[in-house]
Amino acid sequence: TFVVEGEEEVGGEALVDFLKQKKRDLKCDGVVVSDTGIPDLKHPALTYALRGVAALEVRLDGPDRDLHSGIYGGSVENPAMALSKLLAQMIDKNGRIAVLGFYDDVAKLSAYERKQMARVPFSEAKYKKLLGVKALFGEKGFTSNEHRAARPTFEINGLTSGYQGEGSKTIVPSHASAKITMRLVPHQDAAKILRLVARHLKSLCPPTMRMTVELGHAADPYIVSPTGRLAKAALKSLKSAFGHEPVLLREGGSIPVVEHFARILKVDTYLLGLALPDDNLHSPNEKMDLEVFTRGIQMSANLWTDFAEAS
Amino acid sequence: TFVVEGEEEVGGEALVDFLKQKKRDLKCDGVVVSDTGIPDLKHPALTYALRGVAALEVRLDGPDRDLHSGIYGGSVENPAMALSKLLAQMIDKNGRIAVLGFYDDVAKLSAYERKQMARVPFSEAKYKKLLGVKALFGEKGFTSNEHRAARPTFEINGLTSGYQGEGSKTIVPSHASAKITMRLVPHQDAAKILRLVARHLKSLCPPTMRMTVELGHAADPYIVSPTGRLAKAALKSLKSAFGHEPVLLREGGSIPVVEHFARILKVDTYLLGLALPDDNLHSPNEKMDLEVFTRGIQMSANLWTDFAEAS
Repeated sequence: TFVVEGEEEVGGEALVDFLKQKKRDLKCDGVVVSDTGIPDLKHPALTYALRGVAALEVRLDGPDRDLHSGIYGGSVENPAMALSKLLAQMIDKNGRIAVLGFYDDVAKLSAYERKQMARVPFSEAKYKKLLGVKALFGEKGFTSNEHRAARPTFEINGLTSGYQGEGSKTIVPSHASAKITMRLVPHQDAAKILRLVARHLKSLCPPTMRMTVELGHAADPYIVSPTGRLAKAALKSLKSAFGHEPVLLREGGSIPVVEHFARILKVDTYLLGLALPDDNLHSPNEKMDLEVFTRGIQMSANLWTDFAEAS
Repeated sequence: TFVVEGEEEVGGEALVDFLKQKKRDLKCDGVVVSDTGIPDLKHPALTYALRGVAALEVRLDGPDRDLHSGIYGGSVENPAMALSKLLAQMIDKNGRIAVLGFYDDVAKLSAYERKQMARVPFSEAKYKKLLGVKALFGEKGFTSNEHRAARPTFEINGLTSGYQGEGSKTIVPSHASAKITMRLVPHQDAAKILRLVARHLKSLCPPTMRMTVELGHAADPYIVSPTGRLAKAALKSLKSAFGHEPVLLREGGSIPVVEHFARILKVDTYLLGLALPDDNLHSPNEKMDLEVFTRGIQMSANLWTDFAEAS
């Protein structure tokens, strides 16, 4: 069965209703979605895991208004400094998130997975240039490809406090806040992580401040066994279409529809996307490489037989 | 000689030219300015020291654009987190500024000054209520009145990074910045402090970030001996006008004109202001208490004889 759907990328929910209504007609052994990428033509890829996400906002309130820093400065704690000290304690010197229980449910990368991940082409010099950073960074004991796809993160998405215009304003700001999102990995539970982090933040709140933690959206991570029957069949289809040994990828972002297939149809999804790194996804001048397109057609044809044999 | 001047409060510089031109006509033993306050009618006050100020802005640049936190998060350092960690290191757990050499030139408070400062009425409960804070804070080993008037500060006036609108945005922000002002005390040198702090910040910059430090305005602190001849004369005038033993104050803010008198006329300034804490200075419903006004007239009359006797 083919399902052609044009709404998911803009957050549409129509597919969920459709899946629920047509659950019986859509009964299947697995789902194939082509919404991920490949490093290059020599590295066709099966993406077998996605990170989840959990959002929250933390705010510290000190004085009930901005204070004159000459008259009062020194006798009250500065909320922007209190927030900085709080956030600085959230990630330790090894790049690990310092929240009690945060890693408890993280599935360890198997030797097989790490070996496969090491096969994904990666040039540190090119990667730094691509992002415009002076140096890379990440949790100790993992490679950059592992950092961005297979390890959870604690990311400050925004910081706000006090005066932000030109020049200076000699105030002790009344409050400071940070927007935070975490990327989660199998088998972390987004709701549980939000609870743990909120509790941890509250335990670090200094006596001078009132803390507010507002929980935001959350999506669980996703994984399908890369050594299962259908995964192996997908790798076979890729190999014969591209003429190269495929790599196994984990994707750092989330694809919510995958979770819907798992929950409603009770099947795994095999992500066999065909985008090259320079395809400008969702951007001006989006393109698709003709050679990849041809190989992709071949792969799709192979899947009918390879999946059928495997299931 | 009376100089009546109506421009200094809006930053006017005309007085400086006037002082330079009329330097000879204005030759004197001391200057009296009435631009400070008293705690209440039972505590008339001589303000004998003012804090200075020094401003700077520090910015950390990481990636050359905001990055998708799903695709890249975990493999690059987050500038908002790097800034938080940097700022958290600027004040130690005893509330002291952790910049090498920062306190080198700070004049120690004499036993006499601390004793006089302890006479200034202060209620922690009322002060907390006035500012709306849960708890006070400050450098270990000093009182709240000392914190806000006689000790230097390192204050974050503004924090800016990433997304600040409603909801969340899953980015690694490209940069983060903090506006900082320091209040300085006798005999710190504002230009030297800016150099020391900029050097310290640069020494803490992580290898993942590019740091920019932009120096802002600076004004030196001011002090006149509270036990000099004219200071004693001023205290005598206050005592006979108010009928109470006056207190000695240090003011946390700056009054730039005082530095002009010292530099151009080569004389000290005695700050004998008459504002009550609830006079709403520069605010709507500004008032002056009639009793204070009357006592102030008496004090001014006394000064002519008391200063003449002392000089």
